[in-house]
Amino acid sequence: MDDLTQLIELAEKLADISGEIIKQYFRQPRIEAETKAGAISSIVTIADKEAENAMVEIILKEAPNDGIIREEGENIPSQNGRYWVLDPIDGTASFVRGIPSFGTLIGLVNLETNEPLIGVINQPIMQERWIGIKGKSTLFNQRSLVNTYARDRDSKLTEACLISTTPFMFITDRQKAIAKSLQKVCQRTAFGGDCYNYAALASGWSSMPIVVLESDMNYYDFCALIPIIEGVGGVITDWSGNKLNHESTEVLATSNHFLWEQTIEVIRNIQ
Amino acid sequence: MDDLTQLIELAEKLADISGEIIKQYFRQPRIEAETKAGAISSIVTIADKEAENAMVEIILKEAPNDGIIREEGENIPSQNGRYWVLDPIDGTASFVRGIPSFGTLIGLVNLETNEPLIGVINQPIMQERWIGIKGKSTLFNQRSLVNTYARDRDSKLTEACLISTTPFMFITDRQKAIAKSLQKVCQRTAFGGDCYNYAALASGWSSMPIVVLESDMNYYDFCALIPIIEGVGGVITDWSGNKLNHESTEVLATSNHFLWEQTIEVIRNIQ
Repeated sequence: MDDLTQLIELAEKLADISGEIIKQYFRQPRIEAETKAGAISSIVTIADKEAENAMVEIILKEAPNDGIIREEGENIPSQNGRYWVLDPIDGTASFVRGIPSFGTLIGLVNLETNEPLIGVINQPIMQERWIGIKGKSTLFNQRSLVNTYARDRDSKLTEACLISTTPFMFITDRQKAIAKSLQKVCQRTAFGGDCYNYAALASGWSSMPIVVLESDMNYYDFCALIPIIEGVGGVITDWSGNKLNHESTEVLATSNHFLWEQTIEVIRNIQ
Repeated sequence: MDDLTQLIELAEKLADISGEIIKQYFRQPRIEAETKAGAISSIVTIADKEAENAMVEIILKEAPNDGIIREEGENIPSQNGRYWVLDPIDGTASFVRGIPSFGTLIGLVNLETNEPLIGVINQPIMQERWIGIKGKSTLFNQRSLVNTYARDRDSKLTEACLISTTPFMFITDRQKAIAKSLQKVCQRTAFGGDCYNYAALASGWSSMPIVVLESDMNYYDFCALIPIIEGVGGVITDWSGNKLNHESTEVLATSNHFLWEQTIEVIRNIQ
């Protein structure tokens, strides 16, 4: 399978199947449940694993030469350099509360060239799906998105909303200092939201331009986000301004290049 | 108007009208817009004010002897001790991101006896409405809620999810120390969520029992939550374990009494 259209169809199939499974477990008020193997596990872990396994099964069948990088199980090597990068439930803290701002992340990347090809954020409860495709406009529920901030040259950090899922992701003194500096500069700071923050940024929904600053990230936490953010004229890099790769852990995403430059400037001034 | 049924109908009317207004402004990607008066203001401020004014207009007409305590405009004194306590958009940080986990809070309280009579959380985008009525089971979209954790004697703080909208709400050293202690004890800590955290607690949706710990609160931030939490067997008090009143600023809500006792014990040990 090498045709991009077919790969997009496969990505959508993965979003469909994982969404069906996750929906069954959402807002189920039990602390623990029995897994198929008889072990006791938390609902979110069960939903995570079952959704991931279902996606892996389909990839192995339909794209047997592709590799898999995943949150729960072991990675599977690729025969062609291409990897599916899976996070069934990004935002477990929202999932366990019953708040539908978690998402399923499905990325497809050529790891040899570090070229993200496809990215999907799927929110099965809200029936919202974002699809980023390398070099194309990002789709939201099949329609092209317009990020009104993309060309807004007047964007100022002092008028932006700074978002991080949790302050606990800033671990080193340098990370804490950077977060603190940006919190001082930006008009508003918000927490929570997980992948939905990137979806909101891409959608241009926010009533102010957005800066997402996160660290302590894994590849499966952000791989899918790259084509989604880039496909609306947003910027997503590491904190040094470099292209993200599978070893990156610090992620910066902004509504446009102007805000990105101002953010990188603040970061550079912190030793 | 003194009949409880009529007052509930009025509360629902307020939720309907504010919801219609707020929906028009949600996910509108503009930084600023012109108000009716010609001034430039942010979308969230406009939505907040217009929704509040619409509710106030109805109260003045249909319950002219009742007072009003509100987020945006000036308070209106009561002729009968009863006050409507209004927060049109609780969770502006979610609203500005386009995340539907904000809510409209409508409380009705007899301030002379500190007796909360009615509480509404309305989420106009998700079309979700929680109604708490003094002494009755809390309703979610007209159906009685079951909080499966209410009688769970085995609930342990070490298995609970601790939630606060933002770490910045802990201002004094004592507040910071209490938050830190509880973050260490609880299994999971989550941020964001605003009033939706209390709604999730009341709904028993979460896959683990919930402790919500918040400070720097205003009366309109929590008045409506009291009958909603109490109507499902949850507990909501201040951090000293006392009944909340219009001067309280520290709020603690738990899925049941057992968790509440354990939380208060942790708080008591902090000087």
